[in-house]
Amino acid sequence: MALIEPRTLKGFRDYLPEAQIPREWLIDTARRVYRSYGFLPIDTPALEYEEILTGKGGEESDKQMYRFEDHGGRRVALRFDLTVPLARFVAQHSNQLGMPFKRYHIASVWRGENTQKGRYREFMQCDFDTIGTESIAADIETGLVIHDLVRAIGMEEFTIRINNRKILNGFLEAAGVADRASAVLRVIDKADKVGKDAVLQELTSGVSLSQRDAALIVRGLLDTPFDEFGVLEANLLQQLLGPERQSALCAQGIVELTQTIQGMLAAGVPSERIRPDLSIARGLDYYTGTIFETVLNDLPGIGSICSGGRYDDLANLYTKERLPGIGASLGLDRLLTALEELKLLPTTRATAPVFLPFFDAQRLGDYLALATKLRAAGIGVELYPEPKKLKTQLQYADRRGYPFAIVIGSDEWKSGTAQVKNLKNGKSDVVPLHDATGALAPELLTRLRA
Amino acid sequence: MALIEPRTLKGFRDYLPEAQIPREWLIDTARRVYRSYGFLPIDTPALEYEEILTGKGGEESDKQMYRFEDHGGRRVALRFDLTVPLARFVAQHSNQLGMPFKRYHIASVWRGENTQKGRYREFMQCDFDTIGTESIAADIETGLVIHDLVRAIGMEEFTIRINNRKILNGFLEAAGVADRASAVLRVIDKADKVGKDAVLQELTSGVSLSQRDAALIVRGLLDTPFDEFGVLEANLLQQLLGPERQSALCAQGIVELTQTIQGMLAAGVPSERIRPDLSIARGLDYYTGTIFETVLNDLPGIGSICSGGRYDDLANLYTKERLPGIGASLGLDRLLTALEELKLLPTTRATAPVFLPFFDAQRLGDYLALATKLRAAGIGVELYPEPKKLKTQLQYADRRGYPFAIVIGSDEWKSGTAQVKNLKNGKSDVVPLHDATGALAPELLTRLRA
Repeated sequence: MALIEPRTLKGFRDYLPEAQIPREWLIDTARRVYRSYGFLPIDTPALEYEEILTGKGGEESDKQMYRFEDHGGRRVALRFDLTVPLARFVAQHSNQLGMPFKRYHIASVWRGENTQKGRYREFMQCDFDTIGTESIAADIETGLVIHDLVRAIGMEEFTIRINNRKILNGFLEAAGVADRASAVLRVIDKADKVGKDAVLQELTSGVSLSQRDAALIVRGLLDTPFDEFGVLEANLLQQLLGPERQSALCAQGIVELTQTIQGMLAAGVPSERIRPDLSIARGLDYYTGTIFETVLNDLPGIGSICSGGRYDDLANLYTKERLPGIGASLGLDRLLTALEELKLLPTTRATAPVFLPFFDAQRLGDYLALATKLRAAGIGVELYPEPKKLKTQLQYADRRGYPFAIVIGSDEWKSGTAQVKNLKNGKSDVVPLHDATGALAPELLTRLRA
Repeated sequence: MALIEPRTLKGFRDYLPEAQIPREWLIDTARRVYRSYGFLPIDTPALEYEEILTGKGGEESDKQMYRFEDHGGRRVALRFDLTVPLARFVAQHSNQLGMPFKRYHIASVWRGENTQKGRYREFMQCDFDTIGTESIAADIETGLVIHDLVRAIGMEEFTIRINNRKILNGFLEAAGVADRASAVLRVIDKADKVGKDAVLQELTSGVSLSQRDAALIVRGLLDTPFDEFGVLEANLLQQLLGPERQSALCAQGIVELTQTIQGMLAAGVPSERIRPDLSIARGLDYYTGTIFETVLNDLPGIGSICSGGRYDDLANLYTKERLPGIGASLGLDRLLTALEELKLLPTTRATAPVFLPFFDAQRLGDYLALATKLRAAGIGVELYPEPKKLKTQLQYADRRGYPFAIVIGSDEWKSGTAQVKNLKNGKSDVVPLHDATGALAPELLTRLRA
């Protein structure tokens, strides 16, 4: 019979242990941080009715969605994010859930994206959201969760950029360019990459604004100064617009942005990690208030690793109940890929600290009993399954990254001792296996926990 | 605009927090046990080329598989188990992995099954396998992992049933019914449910065996006695067959079964949890040696919660390299559903121990700062997002199952104290918030950790 070539689909990847170990660690870390704020876990099906998923994410998402007909002739699709399923979920269960409802959801999503961008078609999202409240406390808390999360994954040099869609929408409306707001925001959003001159150029030639309007927008959204506490000089935008074009929406956005930043500072976030930035827009239609983006100062090229914002009405496709909320998402696989490429991942490869060679073929029962005792003492141990040459077994242990081996041959079994070998520095010690009562010797345990 | 009805597909379900919290706990527990034996995590794509997945799982799996054409015109399918993807994975990466290779994989699979059986079409599998060794040590270890796993999820009264396909195949061959082995095993496998008489009846009328052959099979596979250490009376099957019909394969199976059980006993598994059982077959074509099934003594009706066995050649569809192995799978969602129905799930619903009402609207910054300090001390805390009536907030906390609330109003802020309320017994204490150095008061921390 001809062999089938073992391969993964284009845009999909296997996670070998050296990638999956840090991935599990990232997932655990995110979960621990979410839980420390009282967020609750949920899960939803990977497959949903097509009608549930289409139309909500926009044309681009619809095009990329994996959809097909199931065995029962239903039109079904694989979820492309965790937000649309959340909307369906809260509409369906809101009575049972009670509001406010704070949930996290860590799961894979699928998008038939162009893989030339270096993106995968299957990736894990790591979302948290607070539904059912418009309180600014939820906006502040979202910023705090992002801050704790990025620190918990080992980063100290990062910047949380914050904006508020009300400022953008109010300002553009008052400036008389509301009809071209989407196009303007798309240009402004790229300011970081292309620079201010290119933005001015694009606003006049691409979006067809007057020189004056383009200059006003650049001064308002890219040049606005903030005081030493990261707070926007509140009057400046209003001054730019002049007395006839004041915007209540813009003013409200400024208040919210200020409160969000001040709340984060009050909770202990260092000011250098917070940057108000009126140029970020994060997609065009979805968000209605506070917006967050997070960049690693030393790796700006990978883009935002944790982004999100406030929305007015999550589930309006499925229910008349108004459900405002705010949330953000850790781009787990994007972060992992970047750290992997940059060789910044922790290099732990073993999942247990101790390797136990199977050395004396007559003593399998004794090795098994010792391994059981070590595990009962909370020390993970891998027993090699075959009584091969010690050298072969230790090569295996070395390749797997084990920190310790306990070498016990016939002589050691007779004398009741073990060689504890530190595989990192090559040193070994002979220690007793058991104390007088027959329990594991404290000396052995201490060494293995070192 | 007409609303879209929020609903899940038939055979799919949402996991609300009260189900997802124990589910995450089960996943964590399995992972912890697998890691304590040095198993390494991997992940593979949910979608694979259809040709990779078809043919390997048998006709039933092929029929139930979700398959379709993707955007690039490729025939693709959702994985229906984690074993076929493992076979493809080791064939593809065997050089990089090195043998033996011990992996665990915890992920969802999809089967378009008949939902009338109470089965879901999406469920999580929780597999571990040791590839690349035929050593009996791996068989024993598989039994030990199952034992640790079931105990770690809180069960003490359970039975691991063990058999060996070599005994079955050798015995049936020697008995002259090898041509009807599949049909015979299917009948024998049901002995537990239907009883011995029905088996005899079915073997003669259904499978058309002679009365004598049927009686021989029932005596050999259902009546065989084991000694007090759970070890098969080795000569008995051979005596039944008589001197002309000895089977080397059967004898080899008996040796392996005995070694597996004795190894598990040596490692400390209590003998009452091990039951050799020649009637279990676990599917018909897949396994070639040791087989495991695990039943909860008080819940036999839910079937085996952890099953597996040894196979000769995992990846022969994809590679010429011979890859024998052994593994098992925890039926996580089946177990969860059963425990849920029987109300045996832990009732913890909160993910953090402390609820902090937002009571004095002027003090948001102070509440935020206190919550940050508590989290830094390792104590998770949810701050309610709105300064509503205390009663409303405490009802929310009660519904969420919080064990503690820290109530601080204007007076408490002034006096630097907090009411620590035990929400389980209703008692409260007034304790200082900070000690003389401005750190959190040890008294406060002690109470919240209680």
